[in-house]
Amino acid sequence: MPLLAVGTLAYDDVYTPYGEVKMIEAGSCSYIAMAATQFVEPVQLVSVIGGDYNDDFLADLRRRGADLEGVEVIADGKSFFWSGRYHDDMMGRDTLDTQLNVLADFDPKVPQSYRATDYIMLGNLTPAVQARVIDQLDGRPKLIALDTMNFWMDIALDDLKAVLQRIDILIINDEEARQLSGELSLLTAAAKIVAMGPEILIIKKGEHGALLFKEDEVFSAPALLLAKVVDPTGAGDTFAGGLMGYLAATDDISFENLKRAVIYGSAMASFVVEDFGTRRMQGLDRGQIDERVQRFVRLMNVAL
Amino acid sequence: MPLLAVGTLAYDDVYTPYGEVKMIEAGSCSYIAMAATQFVEPVQLVSVIGGDYNDDFLADLRRRGADLEGVEVIADGKSFFWSGRYHDDMMGRDTLDTQLNVLADFDPKVPQSYRATDYIMLGNLTPAVQARVIDQLDGRPKLIALDTMNFWMDIALDDLKAVLQRIDILIINDEEARQLSGELSLLTAAAKIVAMGPEILIIKKGEHGALLFKEDEVFSAPALLLAKVVDPTGAGDTFAGGLMGYLAATDDISFENLKRAVIYGSAMASFVVEDFGTRRMQGLDRGQIDERVQRFVRLMNVAL
Repeated sequence: MPLLAVGTLAYDDVYTPYGEVKMIEAGSCSYIAMAATQFVEPVQLVSVIGGDYNDDFLADLRRRGADLEGVEVIADGKSFFWSGRYHDDMMGRDTLDTQLNVLADFDPKVPQSYRATDYIMLGNLTPAVQARVIDQLDGRPKLIALDTMNFWMDIALDDLKAVLQRIDILIINDEEARQLSGELSLLTAAAKIVAMGPEILIIKKGEHGALLFKEDEVFSAPALLLAKVVDPTGAGDTFAGGLMGYLAATDDISFENLKRAVIYGSAMASFVVEDFGTRRMQGLDRGQIDERVQRFVRLMNVAL
Repeated sequence: MPLLAVGTLAYDDVYTPYGEVKMIEAGSCSYIAMAATQFVEPVQLVSVIGGDYNDDFLADLRRRGADLEGVEVIADGKSFFWSGRYHDDMMGRDTLDTQLNVLADFDPKVPQSYRATDYIMLGNLTPAVQARVIDQLDGRPKLIALDTMNFWMDIALDDLKAVLQRIDILIINDEEARQLSGELSLLTAAAKIVAMGPEILIIKKGEHGALLFKEDEVFSAPALLLAKVVDPTGAGDTFAGGLMGYLAATDDISFENLKRAVIYGSAMASFVVEDFGTRRMQGLDRGQIDERVQRFVRLMNVAL
């Protein structure tokens, strides 16, 4: 089953206690595509870039199984640029610069060949733009997942609430879940958020793992303990890409399989933070991924 | 197998967003005893109280299986008193008052009948006092666990490091593990702490569960999601009491059984926070505990 992914293709400057990179290829679509193509192809991308985007990087995505028909190129425009510096404790970061460039007027166009796709990953974007992607789909896909952030809760809450009614899985972090629900307890927060529309909720907790909620069922996935996190950028997108890639590949949205998908997503995220940008993903093979998944299994295995 | 527990028997005033209690029976020995007697007896207590301590509460502890021979009563003294107010988000608290009273000169006396006990729980106290308990034991027990806090790392680090060389399990929270090791990564922190003496390390992460480290093995236990935490006081002591009570009862310190003990400790902690002081523990039976343990099992169960 193909996966359709909407998001950004960006250049990032990233500063962490372990070093810095400039003009590295990043953005949610890069991370989602790198992770999801480990499980499924094609991964159909909908995004926008300027004429300045690195052709070699795009060719590599294509070679891995990404379909770039939906990536609009604005030849005389500049690609989206973000720059950030992580704090010494890697717990927080400061945005140094954001240049929307071609993203400012992004009006996603879903190619005809993508419109019947059953697995949809809506990366973090203006909620109205995410909605415009859904508008262009043929009928109702099997599974629409959406990532968002507190920024949209602050400035576009009504649009966000509208799009939440049209999706199946919401993927946010614990702070965002608390803000969206107004609840401190993640259990109570989850109930309120599910009542807003998405049947399935995934709450990412960074170094503390992730929670999966569906109806009365809850699953708590641990995070792998890492000696060194080089660059946390893109961990959430990579998690989402791994999760949705696994679900599209297995075409099974039972709770049992959703749990497996959360672990595969967590495994992919545990790789991406080991290096800057998508570098760590570039040499990965399925054997290494399965080996890492087994580390998660050992981490949580207990006979009771 | 009996369990020997050293710690405080205190009165607390506690203020939380859900209410307040005054002069409630608390202190690490109360919580440890309430939890551990669900699994094993006797639980031999070493502590100190004033003549003002509630006889009915002590009689209840005795009825549950606590041995109070090692509880020194200073008839004309006042019992240790602590008062605190939890923040609205329950994430932090302010200490309003601490009156050491009889605890100021606490010199623990381990009764002859306790000295051959194989399972020892050293509740959070001055490290030198914890060491004096070990001094009085006959030979080398099977398992000595120790709880401590950042306060002792600030003012008695050398004493703490000395006692760490004489114990088997250190039980601390993530913030304390980072302070003690000077490391941000809990994986690196664990390696450094184990090198200080304890073969086994348990890092409590509150609402994010707990980590168990022994040699090259790691286990990540989730926390149960609770809609409402009424009073977090004593959660750590209750965790330790459940853990050590389970280990003493099963007399098995294999990694597999340590993992089970962490889940039993977590289950006990998930109960105690549902009401003030030890109230929620008072009506608990083993059936309810086993049922809650199964909720942990479901929370972390995945087939991969």
